[in-house]
Amino acid sequence: MTETIPPGTRFARLPSPFHFKRGGSLSGAVLAYETWGELSPSGDNAILILPGLSPNAHAAANASNPEPGWWEAMLGPGKPIDTNRWFVVCVNPLGSCKGSTGAASVNPDTGRAYRLDFPDLSIEDGARAAREVLRELGIERLACVIGNSMGGMGALAFLLLHPGLARSHIQVSGAPQALPFSIAIRSLQREAIRLDPNWNQGLYDDHAYPENGMRIARKLGVVTYRSAIEWDGRFGRVRLDSECREDDPFGLEFEVERYLEGHARRFVRTFDPNCYLYLSRSMDWFDVAEYAGGDLMKALASIRLERALSIGVHTDILFPLQQQEQVAEGLRAGGANSEFLALESPQGHDAFLVDIARFGPAIGGFLAKL
Amino acid sequence: MTETIPPGTRFARLPSPFHFKRGGSLSGAVLAYETWGELSPSGDNAILILPGLSPNAHAAANASNPEPGWWEAMLGPGKPIDTNRWFVVCVNPLGSCKGSTGAASVNPDTGRAYRLDFPDLSIEDGARAAREVLRELGIERLACVIGNSMGGMGALAFLLLHPGLARSHIQVSGAPQALPFSIAIRSLQREAIRLDPNWNQGLYDDHAYPENGMRIARKLGVVTYRSAIEWDGRFGRVRLDSECREDDPFGLEFEVERYLEGHARRFVRTFDPNCYLYLSRSMDWFDVAEYAGGDLMKALASIRLERALSIGVHTDILFPLQQQEQVAEGLRAGGANSEFLALESPQGHDAFLVDIARFGPAIGGFLAKL
Repeated sequence: MTETIPPGTRFARLPSPFHFKRGGSLSGAVLAYETWGELSPSGDNAILILPGLSPNAHAAANASNPEPGWWEAMLGPGKPIDTNRWFVVCVNPLGSCKGSTGAASVNPDTGRAYRLDFPDLSIEDGARAAREVLRELGIERLACVIGNSMGGMGALAFLLLHPGLARSHIQVSGAPQALPFSIAIRSLQREAIRLDPNWNQGLYDDHAYPENGMRIARKLGVVTYRSAIEWDGRFGRVRLDSECREDDPFGLEFEVERYLEGHARRFVRTFDPNCYLYLSRSMDWFDVAEYAGGDLMKALASIRLERALSIGVHTDILFPLQQQEQVAEGLRAGGANSEFLALESPQGHDAFLVDIARFGPAIGGFLAKL
Repeated sequence: MTETIPPGTRFARLPSPFHFKRGGSLSGAVLAYETWGELSPSGDNAILILPGLSPNAHAAANASNPEPGWWEAMLGPGKPIDTNRWFVVCVNPLGSCKGSTGAASVNPDTGRAYRLDFPDLSIEDGARAAREVLRELGIERLACVIGNSMGGMGALAFLLLHPGLARSHIQVSGAPQALPFSIAIRSLQREAIRLDPNWNQGLYDDHAYPENGMRIARKLGVVTYRSAIEWDGRFGRVRLDSECREDDPFGLEFEVERYLEGHARRFVRTFDPNCYLYLSRSMDWFDVAEYAGGDLMKALASIRLERALSIGVHTDILFPLQQQEQVAEGLRAGGANSEFLALESPQGHDAFLVDIARFGPAIGGFLAKL
């Protein structure tokens, strides 16, 4: 696999053994992270960012790695998450393949990669691992925990498992539980990988790699990360130049197909298929309602925060807007000064990554009031 | 493949050779159809139904086949399409594998199945083939042409290619052109089939059949045929009983996954993969705008009808409601008494098949006024 751990990534050791919610444990596991800014003497300016499924910890350029990160326009000096004021920590999720221990990591007990011997991963395990990074950095309290997409789930798990650790929360295009449409999409992505003969029950290597399954999974992901309305304006029915078209009679013909193809090519072989399966399934399992006997709103209301912001967009079909609204309402019922903000971005679930013109002022404005 | 041509299906011979829009031709081709009711002495009561991608011609029980059909609640004596009054013809689309000539049919010139030697299929070819069924039945004018989904595209092609042949039109969850989100979904379905090693450039057989590709294609289809809102209420986060779950650690766990699995099992090996590829691509190619130099509304307005009804639902993500609205507006601009009806069905694109409580009165009411 292509090397996918950015230079300058730091690693926090997790307690060994590190026990998982559903059983099993890891020995000598680590969580990858990066930081921006400086922790204030009183330690009151720390922000934790929990990202989505695929990002590494390099959210933006910093001293140890000047390359732009995946949230470059959001994070830095003078930017919405202003690192002149805030000390920001971003982790790579537990179970990923971009620095944190995951199914592609070597199990020190056997000397071989975990593959399917990796324990069943839950969102809660990732939240507990992120807590250990804060311990390593000497952070006793967070000004804010920000969670995007899967990280939104992680942030809610973090708040439920570590009461009192965060003063505020920004939920970005996340959800308090997986709903059946999203479960169906993710189940289908996992099935495409598992049906690829090269997946071979997780025993692939670089030569026999489940490229076809990963292609389908990624393209289906991109279809659900964006929106039909955006694509109507962006691609319409524009066709490829004839020189870009393939001989294959069922090959690429429309611009939108080339766009998906480009995304697939950039993703395949940069993300480990087994890690993808574990992280994907952890989202399907996540359900805040479990923390209050099946009552989702009661579980959210058990979280104590000073302030909260829950943001999403109308065009998100994977983490639909009503789920961000539920989070805002539940946290308000728990006593937080809780805002819900529905943005008009056409870009669907991915809007928080690309529509900084809308998401930036929302996030920056909330942080400025802290 | 499982035998999929219903008993009682009738066959109209197409002119031989039957030339295709994009070149190539068929010899000795047929179109499968069924009928209900009686043609009136003046021939003024004929209705043509053009179905979606997968149905056969057996829309409902009739004298030659008492088994219920795929639109059983819509079509029959006293039903919304009342066969006591109307003489109804339903075809199986050209290029399908359920009676009409398609890629799985034997090419009489070679004695072997066409497979990828089948000519490039356009929606217009299917519309011209349906015209031949009317000729065989002695129908000189249609009271109405009804098109569902892909058949909605077919109906618009029929009206453009055969001016004056129909007095009225009902467009059901169809579209005047393919838009990029739908193209992306269909492209991905076709890619899943083509990536299956058993597809083998179309040279599969019953023993080496692209079952995995067809499973993914069908499940992705079902995801886009229904709606998230329907599934929230229907499946929620309900899990399978442990006895239904598989040993496979990434196997079925939620009810929604079992639902998709059931759909896949019923579809795979009852629909020919090459036929699926041809029909799917024909939808991506279809664009009414081609009939007026790229001006979609002008092309629609060139169609002359007395009355038209265009129906769809808010929850349809594959043939979105604004496309049915375009059809209604375009036909109105062409002089028709043209209605647009947005129904509240939660079932998404498939609603016309299952929400007869809403679609029945809409279609029946329109026909009653003819």
